[in-house]
Amino acid sequence: MAVTDTVTELEVHDVRFPTSEQLDGSDAMNPDPDYSAAYAVLRTSGGPPGHGFCFTIGRGNEVMAEAIRSLAPYVVGHPAPLTADALGALHRTLTHDSPLRWLGPEKGVMHMAAGAVVNAAWDLAATRAGLPVWEFLATMTPAELVALVDFRYLTDALTPGEALAILRAAEPGRAARTARLRAEGYPAYTTSPGWLGYDDGKLVRLAEEAVADGFGQIKLKVGADLGDDLRRMRLARAAVGPAVRIAVDANQRWDVPEAVRWMTALAPYAPYWIEEPTSPDDILGHAAVRAGQPVKVATGEHAANRVVFKQLLQAGAVDIVQIDAARVAGVNDNLAILLLAAKYGVPVCPHAGGVGLCELVQHLAMFDYVAVSGSWEDRVIEYVDHLHEHFTDPVVVERGRYRAPAAPGFSARMKPASLTAHRFPDGPVWRARRAPGPHGTQEVTA
Amino acid sequence: MAVTDTVTELEVHDVRFPTSEQLDGSDAMNPDPDYSAAYAVLRTSGGPPGHGFCFTIGRGNEVMAEAIRSLAPYVVGHPAPLTADALGALHRTLTHDSPLRWLGPEKGVMHMAAGAVVNAAWDLAATRAGLPVWEFLATMTPAELVALVDFRYLTDALTPGEALAILRAAEPGRAARTARLRAEGYPAYTTSPGWLGYDDGKLVRLAEEAVADGFGQIKLKVGADLGDDLRRMRLARAAVGPAVRIAVDANQRWDVPEAVRWMTALAPYAPYWIEEPTSPDDILGHAAVRAGQPVKVATGEHAANRVVFKQLLQAGAVDIVQIDAARVAGVNDNLAILLLAAKYGVPVCPHAGGVGLCELVQHLAMFDYVAVSGSWEDRVIEYVDHLHEHFTDPVVVERGRYRAPAAPGFSARMKPASLTAHRFPDGPVWRARRAPGPHGTQEVTA
Repeated sequence: MAVTDTVTELEVHDVRFPTSEQLDGSDAMNPDPDYSAAYAVLRTSGGPPGHGFCFTIGRGNEVMAEAIRSLAPYVVGHPAPLTADALGALHRTLTHDSPLRWLGPEKGVMHMAAGAVVNAAWDLAATRAGLPVWEFLATMTPAELVALVDFRYLTDALTPGEALAILRAAEPGRAARTARLRAEGYPAYTTSPGWLGYDDGKLVRLAEEAVADGFGQIKLKVGADLGDDLRRMRLARAAVGPAVRIAVDANQRWDVPEAVRWMTALAPYAPYWIEEPTSPDDILGHAAVRAGQPVKVATGEHAANRVVFKQLLQAGAVDIVQIDAARVAGVNDNLAILLLAAKYGVPVCPHAGGVGLCELVQHLAMFDYVAVSGSWEDRVIEYVDHLHEHFTDPVVVERGRYRAPAAPGFSARMKPASLTAHRFPDGPVWRARRAPGPHGTQEVTA
Repeated sequence: MAVTDTVTELEVHDVRFPTSEQLDGSDAMNPDPDYSAAYAVLRTSGGPPGHGFCFTIGRGNEVMAEAIRSLAPYVVGHPAPLTADALGALHRTLTHDSPLRWLGPEKGVMHMAAGAVVNAAWDLAATRAGLPVWEFLATMTPAELVALVDFRYLTDALTPGEALAILRAAEPGRAARTARLRAEGYPAYTTSPGWLGYDDGKLVRLAEEAVADGFGQIKLKVGADLGDDLRRMRLARAAVGPAVRIAVDANQRWDVPEAVRWMTALAPYAPYWIEEPTSPDDILGHAAVRAGQPVKVATGEHAANRVVFKQLLQAGAVDIVQIDAARVAGVNDNLAILLLAAKYGVPVCPHAGGVGLCELVQHLAMFDYVAVSGSWEDRVIEYVDHLHEHFTDPVVVERGRYRAPAAPGFSARMKPASLTAHRFPDGPVWRARRAPGPHGTQEVTA
């Protein structure tokens, strides 16, 4: 008789880090983020738990935590989702359940909550399989992978048959690319020099350090003041030289005409891409920005779902697709997006940073290289050197490249001591600050 | 010395109605909704409170309630928002606050929560002014109305100057249209005959009753089975005759190619519009459906925000814009959408039904008639005859027309006895049913 392995609990933690005190992560739209996670632990009767999370920047993290809690009845008491079939079924249940879907559909708080639970299930299943998630995925057959994808609303751009053909075409090279990935690591770029709250000296010093550390690309935040951006771009270009790529990131600050004007002004410094020039919902707007100025357009970290990515590709609105591991409904949604990008021949350069996003998304980029696009040409994973110390299997970035994770799972597990210390609002890190209200440390003003 | 009027409390209720027992509201995507509201009461020190709510269909309503609660620090302790200036500032605060924006941006649970609070503030302000919301809006100057709108991300389609010109052009006719609206009421259509769970006899009987009641348009749910839809459409057409419009509503059921095929098959019965043929996020998909078959395309009840509506209009994707009073961030967002629709010359036919959506949205359609589009040609407000008895100022629909509300406020106040009886999970209506879990009465399956 088979040993049953059943989900016994969906444990949820509200964890926040006081990053606003150092202006780490500051940009034109987010002046003082406290990087936070609504963190989920999927406990089962049969072995170690799975871990997943949503990333937020402080206030409202309690709403994310409540949304994850609301998903408990869909998993607790059910068999542990350990197979490709079960992981596909769980994703469909959490994104198609009619009352929950009404709260999106497939967007915002409920969709991110589904993503945390789906990703926790992938951590669980890969851990049981004894493989890191990138390799767990890369050992599945093309047919198994296609069955993980929700093709609803996608078939005018990508059919299951087309997806199967993409995966089959990449199959013969999987072993060679896996070996090369293990030997060389995956290319990275660093955002650490470019936060908007850093002064010019810190910007130049960190840009020089990035080049010395082997990075071929850095990124600067822009969009608050054009004079400042011109000066910072000039300083950064002087610091890194002509061969290192400098991406810029406006974090959704502009309207379309403003984006075109601003990037036309910055173009002489040869920025490599302009990231999030305007609203992440504005497919036609991104297409207009791409057509109206010479710099490549990148977006996706806030794109709500598969359907938005589909249209960005259909409309020719982006040169670079930026997936986020925790904004959409987990691995399954990102598999759909990787396949769409491969169909349209657009490179995927994942968004990372925040809390644990580097840890998660490296698996998806590496799987893309091994088994979907089959290429890392013009592909880089964002790297930000914050908060990795709170994870039990932190990313390792050396000479500008992510080392392929070897430990089983999704690198998603936070250290128990970190969870305890940063628990909001009553963990010691927060108790040691001024007595916060239930919604954050910052004053809110109406 | 002025009497201060300060917000003292944001009270939140989780209220649910067991509508799934009668299959009221059943459609191709939502087989068993329990119509629900996350209901907000904005109490102040200076007079009667304001009321607003999000509409959901059951499970997850507790997440909406938590999201509304998270907005308390932005209003409680601040001056009551009673003026146009204050209502504009409140909307901007709730939609632009950086950590809350991260949870959307401008979409899903947090955005709907902002809508509930913004609408409660409009109920409060209009009540204090002694006017129904439609008239409160229609007595503001064009400049005051323009200042209520968030033009971020809209200026490539609509500038403040263009909005001002639209409102000024409608200004001379305001008085005459107000008089006509009071005398005649605003045109309505009814969805009551068409729920997917109703049998053919009930469909025919309710369709005949709708015509006898004076409605010039009815609506049928479609999308689950083409044979059923062809039969129901034939029965409905026979019941209402050739002169009454029959809209059909697929509730997002189809992919683009399927929508084109299905509507081509239904076209011989002359459906007036096809509503929500596919994903509400799929701007390009709606444009393709509109181009690929002969029936007018309508959508909007699930469109996440201003930016999606902007693109639906820019892309020529819709013949009819369907605003929802409680999906976007309240009156201010809907004012932006009404102005965008007027700019593009597309009629607005509001979505309603659910719990209290008819009560709210009538004010927006009437304001549009009086002060924005200046027309009710080819414009109708949806009417569904459920749950109005729970409101203190319910809609009045006579001979197929909504009577203009005369009572001050937004018609948003639920009866205290209804709030108590339907409180979830411990109100008497729910205690009388089988002991529910914390997340709903239905079983959930993974």
